[in-house]
Amino acid sequence: MRNCVRRKILCCINGSFGERFAEVAEANGVAVVKLAPPLGEPISPENLHDMLSKNPDVEAVALTHNETSVGLINPLKELVATIKRHDKLVFVDAVSSMGGTEIKVDELGIDVCFSSSQKCFGVPPGLGIGSVSEQAMNLSATASNKGWYFDFKVWEEDQKKGRGTPVTPAIPQIAGLNTALKMIQRNGGRKWYFDLYKERNQRIRIGIEHNGLSTFPRKGSESPTVNCINAPEGVEGGVIYEKMREKGFELAEGYGPLKKRTFRIGNMGYIEMRNIDLMLRTLGDVLTSL
Amino acid sequence: MRNCVRRKILCCINGSFGERFAEVAEANGVAVVKLAPPLGEPISPENLHDMLSKNPDVEAVALTHNETSVGLINPLKELVATIKRHDKLVFVDAVSSMGGTEIKVDELGIDVCFSSSQKCFGVPPGLGIGSVSEQAMNLSATASNKGWYFDFKVWEEDQKKGRGTPVTPAIPQIAGLNTALKMIQRNGGRKWYFDLYKERNQRIRIGIEHNGLSTFPRKGSESPTVNCINAPEGVEGGVIYEKMREKGFELAEGYGPLKKRTFRIGNMGYIEMRNIDLMLRTLGDVLTSL
Repeated sequence: MRNCVRRKILCCINGSFGERFAEVAEANGVAVVKLAPPLGEPISPENLHDMLSKNPDVEAVALTHNETSVGLINPLKELVATIKRHDKLVFVDAVSSMGGTEIKVDELGIDVCFSSSQKCFGVPPGLGIGSVSEQAMNLSATASNKGWYFDFKVWEEDQKKGRGTPVTPAIPQIAGLNTALKMIQRNGGRKWYFDLYKERNQRIRIGIEHNGLSTFPRKGSESPTVNCINAPEGVEGGVIYEKMREKGFELAEGYGPLKKRTFRIGNMGYIEMRNIDLMLRTLGDVLTSL
Repeated sequence: MRNCVRRKILCCINGSFGERFAEVAEANGVAVVKLAPPLGEPISPENLHDMLSKNPDVEAVALTHNETSVGLINPLKELVATIKRHDKLVFVDAVSSMGGTEIKVDELGIDVCFSSSQKCFGVPPGLGIGSVSEQAMNLSATASNKGWYFDFKVWEEDQKKGRGTPVTPAIPQIAGLNTALKMIQRNGGRKWYFDLYKERNQRIRIGIEHNGLSTFPRKGSESPTVNCINAPEGVEGGVIYEKMREKGFELAEGYGPLKKRTFRIGNMGYIEMRNIDLMLRTLGDVLTSL
């Protein structure tokens, strides 16, 4: 925020992590305009275009690529193209999508794209991963009152001088990420990894439907990395979460306003197909026992 | 800075990490007054008192407890008492002292005291450790434009609600710190650990003197966790660092303006006495071979 935005940002909000993005902007003294479709609906390029036409003074647009809290993925390519037609900066929260699905950062023209070690890369948490465009870097160069820790130019300087990072980083996680990336390379590269996510996710989705359940977001916008599942009529999502936990499966509870109505099944990191099958069979047992 | 300081801070500077503190303040739009004795000299309570008398408008004082770059420890108790007589906030960078020597945070009245996992606790890097006084917390409550990530109130809220941390933390390092603290407890508690640092450091200091070398900082202000050693006449510190490295000992080069004139021997984390003895014998060989 402090590197690139002086006054105003448009935040696209699909759930809790989009709300968080807006909170961060406001906490940094930036005015926020919000585009927030009903929960479960993706951001539509048309609505985004309208918002940008009505608010020509926004300097940047914040997108949550994959909104974990509702299990939804946004049409990134179309949204970034729309934003670029209005000549605005694009910030993408790719926390739960980077590594799980293709993001052509430079080709699309994403200015700041960030993620973390513990989601699709399957490495323990503690590491932020990000890229910054030249335009964003130039804006940072002339920004004032940026603070120190998140100042792009501070990080760039140390990197250029071959000193690594300006503060001692989470070294074990860097080694872990290196290992994870080498493993992906060895197994066939990015396409292999993205396909693996797709395959695992489809398997989970089919299993859910077999068990008579449905996913929360609009059809076609389901996240490839986490499924947000409607709890059966009259049952709280937390009950299913707890019962699965007792049987040794750590799923996730619903998040924020969907806490009671849903539960979630993540598909990130190292998971074998046979574990997915076992989890689905166990879920069937739990549902039958309700 | 943004939680507690509105306009002006006094930064006590003994070396590179004190300079860093001032940089961080300036990057956050805070005016900085500096108290910077010659390299190797500790901050004197008298000079600090004079500076505070001449600058009654400073709101806080920043101290580096143990300045790693010059191997110096400041007289924390006396300095904090001086600051409290002037009724200012005290921020203490205890990165390379917390765990290695006693810091009575509440008794002294330190408002913000922070450290990290990878120094005296001997855990891999990735974790910040800190405490915040009630007064600092109250100032944060009324501060604006604080940003989000370092907002004390954000962290307090999640802690109070039993949700842990507002962002996913470096979990392996938390487990590591827990293990390190239990190990300290099992071996006799804090006093045992502080004494161990003292003993190891003395052993290193005696060994250095045996080898005809001297430490850089003023006598009596030598750090208990890192020794900054004057390189012998006509030899660059980096040469000794490299030769020791070839023999399997990872010491540290001099830092900042002392890069050429000194080298450093740290004493943090898990180190056995016999390794110290072996290192000292090897250092003797290296010095003889020059």
